[in-house]
Amino acid sequence: MHNSIGRLFTVTSFGESHGRCVGAVIDGCPAGLPLDEADIQKDLDRRRAGGSGASTTRLEPDKVEVLSGVSDGFTTGAPICLLVWNRDVSEADYESIRYRLRPGHADFTAHVKYGGFSDWRGGGRFSGRITASFVMAGAIARKLLGTIGVEIIAHTVEIGGIKAKPAGFDEVVKKAAADPLRCADPAASKKMAALIDKAGKEGDSLGGVIEGIARHVPVGLGEPVFDNLDGDLAKALLAIPAVKGVEFGAGFAAARMKGSENNDAFVLRGDRVVTVTNNAGGILGGISSGMPVVVRVAVKPTTSIAGEQATVDIQKMAAASISVGGRHDVCIVPRAVPAVEAMMAVTLADFALRAGLLPGVIR
Amino acid sequence: MHNSIGRLFTVTSFGESHGRCVGAVIDGCPAGLPLDEADIQKDLDRRRAGGSGASTTRLEPDKVEVLSGVSDGFTTGAPICLLVWNRDVSEADYESIRYRLRPGHADFTAHVKYGGFSDWRGGGRFSGRITASFVMAGAIARKLLGTIGVEIIAHTVEIGGIKAKPAGFDEVVKKAAADPLRCADPAASKKMAALIDKAGKEGDSLGGVIEGIARHVPVGLGEPVFDNLDGDLAKALLAIPAVKGVEFGAGFAAARMKGSENNDAFVLRGDRVVTVTNNAGGILGGISSGMPVVVRVAVKPTTSIAGEQATVDIQKMAAASISVGGRHDVCIVPRAVPAVEAMMAVTLADFALRAGLLPGVIR
Amino acid sequence: MHNSIGRLFTVTSFGESHGRCVGAVIDGCPAGLPLDEADIQKDLDRRRAGGSGASTTRLEPDKVEVLSGVSDGFTTGAPICLLVWNRDVSEADYESIRYRLRPGHADFTAHVKYGGFSDWRGGGRFSGRITASFVMAGAIARKLLGTIGVEIIAHTVEIGGIKAKPAGFDEVVKKAAADPLRCADPAASKKMAALIDKAGKEGDSLGGVIEGIARHVPVGLGEPVFDNLDGDLAKALLAIPAVKGVEFGAGFAAARMKGSENNDAFVLRGDRVVTVTNNAGGILGGISSGMPVVVRVAVKPTTSIAGEQATVDIQKMAAASISVGGRHDVCIVPRAVPAVEAMMAVTLADFALRAGLLPGVIR
Amino acid sequence: MHNSIGRLFTVTSFGESHGRCVGAVIDGCPAGLPLDEADIQKDLDRRRAGGSGASTTRLEPDKVEVLSGVSDGFTTGAPICLLVWNRDVSEADYESIRYRLRPGHADFTAHVKYGGFSDWRGGGRFSGRITASFVMAGAIARKLLGTIGVEIIAHTVEIGGIKAKPAGFDEVVKKAAADPLRCADPAASKKMAALIDKAGKEGDSLGGVIEGIARHVPVGLGEPVFDNLDGDLAKALLAIPAVKGVEFGAGFAAARMKGSENNDAFVLRGDRVVTVTNNAGGILGGISSGMPVVVRVAVKPTTSIAGEQATVDIQKMAAASISVGGRHDVCIVPRAVPAVEAMMAVTLADFALRAGLLPGVIR
Repeated sequence: MHNSIGRLFTVTSFGESHGRCVGAVIDGCPAGLPLDEADIQKDLDRRRAGGSGASTTRLEPDKVEVLSGVSDGFTTGAPICLLVWNRDVSEADYESIRYRLRPGHADFTAHVKYGGFSDWRGGGRFSGRITASFVMAGAIARKLLGTIGVEIIAHTVEIGGIKAKPAGFDEVVKKAAADPLRCADPAASKKMAALIDKAGKEGDSLGGVIEGIARHVPVGLGEPVFDNLDGDLAKALLAIPAVKGVEFGAGFAAARMKGSENNDAFVLRGDRVVTVTNNAGGILGGISSGMPVVVRVAVKPTTSIAGEQATVDIQKMAAASISVGGRHDVCIVPRAVPAVEAMMAVTLADFALRAGLLPGVIR
Repeated sequence: MHNSIGRLFTVTSFGESHGRCVGAVIDGCPAGLPLDEADIQKDLDRRRAGGSGASTTRLEPDKVEVLSGVSDGFTTGAPICLLVWNRDVSEADYESIRYRLRPGHADFTAHVKYGGFSDWRGGGRFSGRITASFVMAGAIARKLLGTIGVEIIAHTVEIGGIKAKPAGFDEVVKKAAADPLRCADPAASKKMAALIDKAGKEGDSLGGVIEGIARHVPVGLGEPVFDNLDGDLAKALLAIPAVKGVEFGAGFAAARMKGSENNDAFVLRGDRVVTVTNNAGGILGGISSGMPVVVRVAVKPTTSIAGEQATVDIQKMAAASISVGGRHDVCIVPRAVPAVEAMMAVTLADFALRAGLLPGVIR
Repeated sequence: MHNSIGRLFTVTSFGESHGRCVGAVIDGCPAGLPLDEADIQKDLDRRRAGGSGASTTRLEPDKVEVLSGVSDGFTTGAPICLLVWNRDVSEADYESIRYRLRPGHADFTAHVKYGGFSDWRGGGRFSGRITASFVMAGAIARKLLGTIGVEIIAHTVEIGGIKAKPAGFDEVVKKAAADPLRCADPAASKKMAALIDKAGKEGDSLGGVIEGIARHVPVGLGEPVFDNLDGDLAKALLAIPAVKGVEFGAGFAAARMKGSENNDAFVLRGDRVVTVTNNAGGILGGISSGMPVVVRVAVKPTTSIAGEQATVDIQKMAAASISVGGRHDVCIVPRAVPAVEAMMAVTLADFALRAGLLPGVIR
Repeated sequence: MHNSIGRLFTVTSFGESHGRCVGAVIDGCPAGLPLDEADIQKDLDRRRAGGSGASTTRLEPDKVEVLSGVSDGFTTGAPICLLVWNRDVSEADYESIRYRLRPGHADFTAHVKYGGFSDWRGGGRFSGRITASFVMAGAIARKLLGTIGVEIIAHTVEIGGIKAKPAGFDEVVKKAAADPLRCADPAASKKMAALIDKAGKEGDSLGGVIEGIARHVPVGLGEPVFDNLDGDLAKALLAIPAVKGVEFGAGFAAARMKGSENNDAFVLRGDRVVTVTNNAGGILGGISSGMPVVVRVAVKPTTSIAGEQATVDIQKMAAASISVGGRHDVCIVPRAVPAVEAMMAVTLADFALRAGLLPGVIR
């Protein structure tokens, strides 16, 4: 396993779904950043199960604890260890299906790779719960990026085939946060909720698409040819369980455009060079262009479903069937929204440090 | 800049489009691998401009030279430096537009990031020509993976909106290699070629989609939660200029499926656990499942087009217009196919080493 | 700050002397290693203040807690988070000298680098207490190395100029563990103790030399030309506060030998190639030779002394004098012995994994 | 093998003693640094065999070629590939002893690790000739460090037990460069030369000690607790073949001092905090203190000697004897001096970038 990401702003994730805790060590955060637990708690709260039928009924208080790296309300430059304790842990849900491979889950690959020793309870290290560590780290990264004006927001743009109307940054900020599905289009959200409700009743699940936007990103983040901003964003976002695709700007649609349509013309706005359109999603040659960084991720439907599925019992090496009980989100898209923001923030903070755009000490 | 990729099988790329050469240092290749220049030349030749109207008229012999790391026909365990010299270099094409930012190109971001010192001739470090270094490194990675039976192929599945019929590994091997557009569907290829011809005459360009498939990949490649197989593949593939999106298996289509549709049921085939479908694209929880690894990348239309575009002269800081002359592919998709294979190979080789599935010495 | 070490067996240290805890995340440990808290506690106990006058009177229970990565008594392949809580923390000792730079300490460099935000209480991140995280990680590394027969021991070979008689591995094991100064030569230990006693009474401190030996190390650990076994051991050992020099085998004495004296002749012992002497300290060309790996580190005298010293008040920017009170070891050499073993173990475990000499799953 | 060093200023070394070339790729050098081949040639020339009997008679012109990363006399921000071609290569010297392990060499460990495939001619990758790649990279690092005033010098302080008188930075600059043994003490140099002459006639060899000094190093270089300035310097210096020990400031002598003697008192010099003595060698807590960084390395006597030695024939697995012919330095200390400077420069440049003390673009 390799559980660290970032070269200068490095996040190391630890913990399991049904172990003692889920946590992260954030190393490389400059000293002098004002930071208290409320900064982190805010994002953790957004990640928790909401009031919508989309979400699991597992209820974790998820109160962040800061174990190191912060003193008198400021980061010290030392590694910051954060964690949330696991409380609402019921192994019983999993014991009965321990050896029956849940289709779409990492049960099989983890079993082979870790020789049967991996923590199977609740998906262990492969659970969506691990994103709590991403969100805690992301909260610090966002705070840090805030010192140079970078803002990040993500929102649900599609669930079960229902697409939300396009929305700009400010509109998303205003509407998505209040929406139970983190969707900025209330009409679409209502339809999505109905689909989720229906799928849940059918013992099925739904996927969707999340869009993340970062604005006021300075020109120059990204280290080509291999540590491109888009490359590292994609890698970071694919660490979120269930993400199966990533695209930037026009993305796959660009593949169907002509160059004359897709190329973003440069113009001057005062003394700044900007582009008229943003098909590039704010990234040219792997480097931020100063336009909003726009990324979309495809989230597959929740793999744990109540409906019966064919599978294999890995202990008996025999065909079996499975119906995954327990408490699962019918659609994890809304809860993955803060994780998308977090991984964007972690990646951008790393590149901002690498580009020398953040000082060694925040004052 | 950061021009190395891979933790144990590390590729360092160097060189510029119009500098002396393009090359790579491959470090971490086990000793004892039979290797001669022909192994590498074969892939380089496939990358070169073909007979199709899709391709540039720049003609580079691109004969690989092995400067180190190989002795008596075998790798020695030492770093392997490979390069191709640049011969057909005409600066004149670029001098006239030196300060006019080519829309869609990295001219602007490179100018800001490197303070005007970056090599602007032919796109310098941001040119598609850099993929020659990827392809050389990939050839070694493929040879190495071949020792454990892994096979990799890529093919054009879409250009200008024309989609090829789905094709399995063997069909792609048989048909795509011979096709000028690297497409396994001859009928679609013909339509694509017509579109490319038309776009070229209009001074425009086209994009498309490439699919890469790796088969016989052992179970267990990938190091979650951050160095996932999909995450690192995406990062590697986004290093190919013009790639704007990456998806695995069902990818974005999975976002529109239900769990019951998308989940791949496990079954036994002899003593092997396989899945009936492969919506996961051979990756579960960031780890290879033993099923074919399937990835698709969105390639934007070539940014260099003859048609006139609005832009900014960065020296005068004034509005300008530009028509990019020189020798450019109308559609770079076919030539990017070997680069997709190469970056898949480099990533898989790295993970195979990390998983201990390749010996320190090949015998 | 950068608080991770190791490429495949990666240790991330966190925590401060007077913060909530000191801990480590160990990532990359293969699954299936039997591990319980007692394995780690044993080494932590050896690190704690002993009965000798050499040691601080700060009394920490230092009971290890395993927060993740271990399930049912075996490692799972997931990151292992370990920590000890700080209990016996008295800030008062430090408040009075907060701005007076302790000579020989990191007070000044930390103040400048972290802009006055670093945790100054008890040296914060620069305290010897941080080595508790090294020792916890080292305990796991040693257990892992034990599966391939590698054994590691360290001992005090010099304090205050008193040198111990040379001792082989078995003798060190037998005698050093029982000795309060971790010295395998009882006569020398007695003289060292007297010197320590005297220095303590004079408000002064002493340094010394520790030797670490690893035996049954397989041939082939080390990744030249930059990740040499000796290079990475030196780096790891210099992370122990107060270490100012590192030498391998004959070390600095080799600089005074002739080639004919220093070269270790090869001979056959059965079907093994060994050397008659071991001036190379078990490392040739940066790679382990199969002979015992022998390293010595110079430990400077404890910088915190009661005697009055000239210094600067960094707040007032004025000359000042300082006498460091609090609870300090007169000689930290004995307590650094387990840290030397730990950092050797961490480094060797990393190279064993890199060389493919440890399986992905321990069975 | 792992042939890259440095996180932001990364040097990748390639090539073999008797292969086609020896080279390096330097990645992460900021754009805008004035650089021509003469800057690098100067250091390469100092590394070449001198007029002294200490040196090999192998005569390589060693003219540097810059293959990438420099345009119009300035670095572009792209990776800089440099190499020297091997010309004076005579395999015959080595053929006869191919399977007889040279005592003290890496023949045995390389043979085992690389399964007999490593390039054995002239030591291949383990030859002192590899330091040509260090010196080329170091020349760029020094030029870069020069932009912030950092100066680096190294000199021979001991050969064959003869110690040079201590000398300050300016004295070393003035005297060591002109001395054939790179020693700043002419009287000692004369004695050393006589010893070398004698050892050569006896078919034997000598070792020694080199001291490196860096001055005007800003406060704050080093990233504790694992990427300490001393730790990374030691690692870098141990990559120079034949180095068996490294010490900083008072080093091993500090182990024999009392705290009151070894602690460097702080004083104000104008508005700068400095220390009266420099037993710490300019490094406190792993971070540069602003005082000169002083490091000494122990160089073992040349392992290739004409005198007969007992060894093993690895092919026959039988006892054998060996007398190493060919062209070898009796004492490689003088030629290692530029390599010490180079590895110091590479390490300091990396930390200066990491600390944000060098801009992304030099102007």
